[in-house]
Amino acid sequence: MNIYADNAATTRMSRTAIDAMLPCMEEIFGNPSTLYRTGQRAKEVIEQAREDIAAVINASPKEITFTSGGSEADNQAIRSAAELGRKNGKMHIISTAFEHHAVLHTLKRLEEEGFDVTLLDVHESGVIKPEEVDAAIRDDTCLVTIMTANNEIGTIQPIREIGGVCRKRGVIFHTDAVQAVGHIPIDVEKDNIDMLSASGHKFHGPKGSGFLYARKGIRLTNLIEGGAQERGKRAGTENVPAIAGMAAALKEEAAAMEENRKKLTAMRDRLIKGLLEIPHSALNGDQTNRLPGNANFCFEGVEGESILLLLDEKGIQASSGSACTSGSLDPSHVLLAIGRVHDVAHGSLRLTLGEDITEEQVDYIIESVKDVIGYLRSFSPVWKELVAGQRQFIL
Amino acid sequence: MNIYADNAATTRMSRTAIDAMLPCMEEIFGNPSTLYRTGQRAKEVIEQAREDIAAVINASPKEITFTSGGSEADNQAIRSAAELGRKNGKMHIISTAFEHHAVLHTLKRLEEEGFDVTLLDVHESGVIKPEEVDAAIRDDTCLVTIMTANNEIGTIQPIREIGGVCRKRGVIFHTDAVQAVGHIPIDVEKDNIDMLSASGHKFHGPKGSGFLYARKGIRLTNLIEGGAQERGKRAGTENVPAIAGMAAALKEEAAAMEENRKKLTAMRDRLIKGLLEIPHSALNGDQTNRLPGNANFCFEGVEGESILLLLDEKGIQASSGSACTSGSLDPSHVLLAIGRVHDVAHGSLRLTLGEDITEEQVDYIIESVKDVIGYLRSFSPVWKELVAGQRQFIL
Repeated sequence: MNIYADNAATTRMSRTAIDAMLPCMEEIFGNPSTLYRTGQRAKEVIEQAREDIAAVINASPKEITFTSGGSEADNQAIRSAAELGRKNGKMHIISTAFEHHAVLHTLKRLEEEGFDVTLLDVHESGVIKPEEVDAAIRDDTCLVTIMTANNEIGTIQPIREIGGVCRKRGVIFHTDAVQAVGHIPIDVEKDNIDMLSASGHKFHGPKGSGFLYARKGIRLTNLIEGGAQERGKRAGTENVPAIAGMAAALKEEAAAMEENRKKLTAMRDRLIKGLLEIPHSALNGDQTNRLPGNANFCFEGVEGESILLLLDEKGIQASSGSACTSGSLDPSHVLLAIGRVHDVAHGSLRLTLGEDITEEQVDYIIESVKDVIGYLRSFSPVWKELVAGQRQFIL
Repeated sequence: MNIYADNAATTRMSRTAIDAMLPCMEEIFGNPSTLYRTGQRAKEVIEQAREDIAAVINASPKEITFTSGGSEADNQAIRSAAELGRKNGKMHIISTAFEHHAVLHTLKRLEEEGFDVTLLDVHESGVIKPEEVDAAIRDDTCLVTIMTANNEIGTIQPIREIGGVCRKRGVIFHTDAVQAVGHIPIDVEKDNIDMLSASGHKFHGPKGSGFLYARKGIRLTNLIEGGAQERGKRAGTENVPAIAGMAAALKEEAAAMEENRKKLTAMRDRLIKGLLEIPHSALNGDQTNRLPGNANFCFEGVEGESILLLLDEKGIQASSGSACTSGSLDPSHVLLAIGRVHDVAHGSLRLTLGEDITEEQVDYIIESVKDVIGYLRSFSPVWKELVAGQRQFIL
C-alpha cells in the first residue's frame, strides 16, 4: 500500500491544475507585459485567474496580488502593515506563539527594527480567545496576525470573531490562511479579514504559486522591487503557468469543498479514534475544531523521526512537526506552545489526509502506527524507564 | 508568417525544460524538506539542478540559492551587500543609470534608508569603463552592481575587468546577468564575480524560476523569512518543477551556446544592416559588443507603440523598451541613459531573436519594418515637419 498522508506539507497537483498549466508552458508563453497578442493572451490568463481566485474568498480581483508562495505573501502582508504602522507611530503587533515561521521570523526581524510584538497564549486546545485579542490591543497596535488554521495541529481559529474585534478597534487583521484556503470556507467580508495569505501547492495547485489578499485601501509595501507587474506591488515577470494552475486547482477544490470536508472529517475521526487506542498517546489540538484532514498525536517513549522512517517502509508518508522545520532537531514550537513538554513533543506524528483517502487506507494506517509504536517502544530505554516506574508517564 | 522576436522579454520553454518539469508536477511531488522517499526524491532533483547550474557558471553548488526569478535575486543580492555594508559603516553603492528596475528601484529604497548611490555614465555606446568604476570607489563603498548585458540594448559590459577592479579594491561585485546567462559564457571565477542574478525564463526555462550566485563567505540577508529552505536564506517550499526545468534548460543552452552565438550573431548583423537602410534610423548601443540576438533601433518621426501593433498584424512580436515597463508612457530610461533625446527614444524598436530564427524570417522582418516605418511616417505630423525643415533631424 502507498498512502500519502502529508497533505499539510504539500499536495499532489490535480490533473485540472496540470492541464491549466500546460498551454501556458507550451503556447501562451508571451510576457504578459507586452502589447502583442501572445503577451495579451497571457495577460488574460492572469486576469481570469485573479477573478476566479477572488470569487472563492469573496474578494474583488483588484485585491489579489500574486506571489511566489505563502511565505512571500506572509512576509509582504506583515511588512506592509508594519510600514503603515511605522508611519503612524504605531509599532505594536499582536500574534501567537504557534504561527508559521514565515510570520514569526518576520516578526523577529521587526522586533530588531524596534517593533514591539505580543504573542498570545494559544492554550492547550490550540485555539485563541477573541477577548484576549481585544485585551492585547493597544493604542499603538498596527497589526493583528493570526493564522486561520495551524499547519501542524490543524486547529481552526475563531477568525470571524477575531476579525470583528480588530475591525471594532481599528487595527489591520492579517491571517495566514495557507492551510485553510481550499479546505474550509473563507469569506473575507463576513470573516472581517483585511489581509490573507495563501499558497497554491497546499490545495493541489503548483509549487511556486501563492497570493496575498489585501483589502482595498491598504497600501502594500514591495518585498520585491523592480518592474511594474501586479500594479507595481510585486516585481518580476508573472509566473503565468503557476497562476493558471493555482486558480484552476482552487476553483475545483472550492466546488468540492463540502463533499470533501464531510468525507475527510469522518476519515480523520476514524483515524483519531483508532490511534488513541494506543496506550500513553494523545491528540494534539482540539478534537473537533480542526482541519478536516488533520490528525496530530504524541506518543510517549518514542521518537518522531523513527516513526516516520518506519511508516515510510510500510508505504505511509507522514510528518513530525512541519515540513519547513523537519531538518531541525528542536521540538516543534507549535507543540511547545500548546504545553507539550520537550520529551513528549519529540514523539509526535502528523497525519494529514488527502481527499482520495479510503476507509481501508485509514485502517491500514492505524494498524501500521500501532505496529511501529509497539516496535519502537520494545527497545526504547525511555519506555523501559516509564514502565519500570523510574520515570513518570505524562500522557 | 509568425516570428517571435522578443526573446529578451521571455523565451518559449524548451521541450527539454517541460519534460524535466512534468515528472515533478505529476509524480515527484513530495515536499523536499520531508524525510520519506517521495520527499527525498524531490530533494535529489533540487540538488542535482544546483550542481548542473553551478557547473555552467563555474561555481560551487553551495553558492547557488534558488529564487522565484531574476528580480528577487537582484533584490536579495543588493540587500545582502547593503546589510553587510551597513554593519561595517560602508554605505556607498556604485551602479549605472541603465540597470534593470529590479536594481534601480532597490537602490532607490536604499537611498531612502541613508545609502549613497553613484550611478556611472554608460556613454553613448552603452558600455561602462572599468577605470571609471575604479575612480568611483570610495573607502565607504560596499557594493558595485553592474549588469552583464543590458536588457534593452544588449550591450555587454567588461565584467571581468570591472570585477578585477572591485577585487583589487576589496568591494563586493554583483552583476545582474539575467540577459546573459545561457547566451554568453560566464565564469564567476575568471570573471571576478562575487554575486550574480539569473532568471530561468530568459533561457527557455520556466517563469517563476531564478537563482542567485553568492561567493562563499558572503552572508545573505533573507528577503523572504520563514522555513529553513535554501540553507535558511530563502524561505518557502522549493518550486521543484521550476528548479528542474531551469537546470535542464540551462544545461541545454550552455551545450549549444557556441553554435547559437555564431548563428545569432550573423542573423543579428543581417538584421541591423537591413534596418539601418531606413533613412533617419540608428542602432542603439554598440554595433558588435552586444548580445548575439539583440538589435535595438530608433526611428525618427514615429512612435514605438504603433510600430509594435503594426508588426503584430504582420505576425512579428517585438518590443519597445523592456517588457517590465511597457505599461508606462515614459521613454526608456536605458535609451535616455545612452543620450537619446525623448522624441527619438519614443520611436524605438527592440528585436531579440531566438535560436530558431531563419534568414528568410530576418528578411521578412526587415521588409515588414521598412513597410511599417514608411506607412507611419506617411501620416506622422512630426515626420512632415522634419521633411519640411521646420524641425531638425537628429538621426
